[in-house]
Amino acid sequence: MAAKKRKPGPRIGGQTSNRGSGAAFWLYGLHAARAALSNPRRKIRRAAVTDRAQLELGPLLSKVETVTAAAPDAISRLVPPGAVHQGVALLCEPLPSIELEDALASARPGPRLVAVLDQITDPHNQGAILRSAAAFGVAATIVQDRHAAPESGALAKAASGALDIVPQVSVVNIARALEELGRLGFWRIALAADGDSPLKEAAPSGDVAIVLGAEGTGLRRLVRERCDTSAFIPMTGAMESLNVSNAAAIAFYELRRNS
Amino acid sequence: MAAKKRKPGPRIGGQTSNRGSGAAFWLYGLHAARAALSNPRRKIRRAAVTDRAQLELGPLLSKVETVTAAAPDAISRLVPPGAVHQGVALLCEPLPSIELEDALASARPGPRLVAVLDQITDPHNQGAILRSAAAFGVAATIVQDRHAAPESGALAKAASGALDIVPQVSVVNIARALEELGRLGFWRIALAADGDSPLKEAAPSGDVAIVLGAEGTGLRRLVRERCDTSAFIPMTGAMESLNVSNAAAIAFYELRRNS
Repeated sequence: MAAKKRKPGPRIGGQTSNRGSGAAFWLYGLHAARAALSNPRRKIRRAAVTDRAQLELGPLLSKVETVTAAAPDAISRLVPPGAVHQGVALLCEPLPSIELEDALASARPGPRLVAVLDQITDPHNQGAILRSAAAFGVAATIVQDRHAAPESGALAKAASGALDIVPQVSVVNIARALEELGRLGFWRIALAADGDSPLKEAAPSGDVAIVLGAEGTGLRRLVRERCDTSAFIPMTGAMESLNVSNAAAIAFYELRRNS
Repeated sequence: MAAKKRKPGPRIGGQTSNRGSGAAFWLYGLHAARAALSNPRRKIRRAAVTDRAQLELGPLLSKVETVTAAAPDAISRLVPPGAVHQGVALLCEPLPSIELEDALASARPGPRLVAVLDQITDPHNQGAILRSAAAFGVAATIVQDRHAAPESGALAKAASGALDIVPQVSVVNIARALEELGRLGFWRIALAADGDSPLKEAAPSGDVAIVLGAEGTGLRRLVRERCDTSAFIPMTGAMESLNVSNAAAIAFYELRRNS
């Protein structure tokens, strides 16, 4: 029975995806599960659900071949200790890779906003950024193949469904991706504490790429040099820095504030 | 030796603080430790530090009577599994309680901003909110005695020092605290998805109290009724809600945007 399986899922043989480690993972929580089940691009190997969650999810579960009824504590053993699974765990394959232009093709009309995440590796931060990206209609996030959090249950939970909503483009080289964004007409803004101007003065009316670095180390020089300008979030208090997901939320808000 | 002690600290006998559980706790991480050591109101019972952290913290440690040199893995046993302690753990007593008027007395000049947190009990969210509050010069946060995360290492780490910077006022009754804020001349704004106007149109030029509820359940009716107005953060995407610490960060930013 699925619910007896305590180890992370096996590697996917022959998977050519460039997303994270390529390993299957247990996704949990109702919001995340609903989004995964609604995403035609998401392959789900099996599901373990309580009776109550099965009622909640209803016909969405028909997408999954193997659905196992399980008690809450059996599901707890599939997910990280203490994780709030709300009665559902899905053994998922990571999403297949997607190209930038394909991700942009499905953006809603109007000026587009993309977020470039340079070496943000904490799954909670990356998940929270995806959630805010979904809230503010960010067309895509771009991460570096080997320096991003791989898809995982913790990331999906923090994203509260956004992992299956916002296209995440994984690239080998962030600097080259920025060059491509430039060719596509995006105005590239590096967010940095020592930026040239306040963010509210840096945003043009057209397509924008906002580039965020990891806390502590910040943006790498080569990445920053590929941007058209740099901007900062003005702070007035005793703290010189924000949590990176909070900085991202403020940036998305400001860049969408007048749209 | 301190580093052998694996259980959470004992209860503080006779402590009349109304902050959280009143239990001593291990605070860890360099930012959090530096702020705790610099806070004259913070009582620290003992410290366990690596040689390297001892060098980093230097004379700040002279405030602590019992400082024990410890190996990184010995410190790891004092803190939650996987916690990034950076070579320092301090056994701290929770801060003594503080009254709203005392907290406001130390606010910087100009219009004051306070954050009222209604039943936000997740330590990571509460910590991240404190961090943003410090960044945007929030004068105080107000929480409900028995429905807030107690001081803990996880909260202090997420706050990255702000736990010892932003006064946190613990009250028995949030609705009564809002009445007091009204008498003091604060304009009380309830942040809610179904608020009356966008936040950027709801903010006056004087003192403001922004009131935030827990994710999912939102603000309680009695709390919301004590506010002068309600406001929402406009979202344009597929997600109907933000992580509460991200919503708080955006609110602080917007309310300080033109200051």
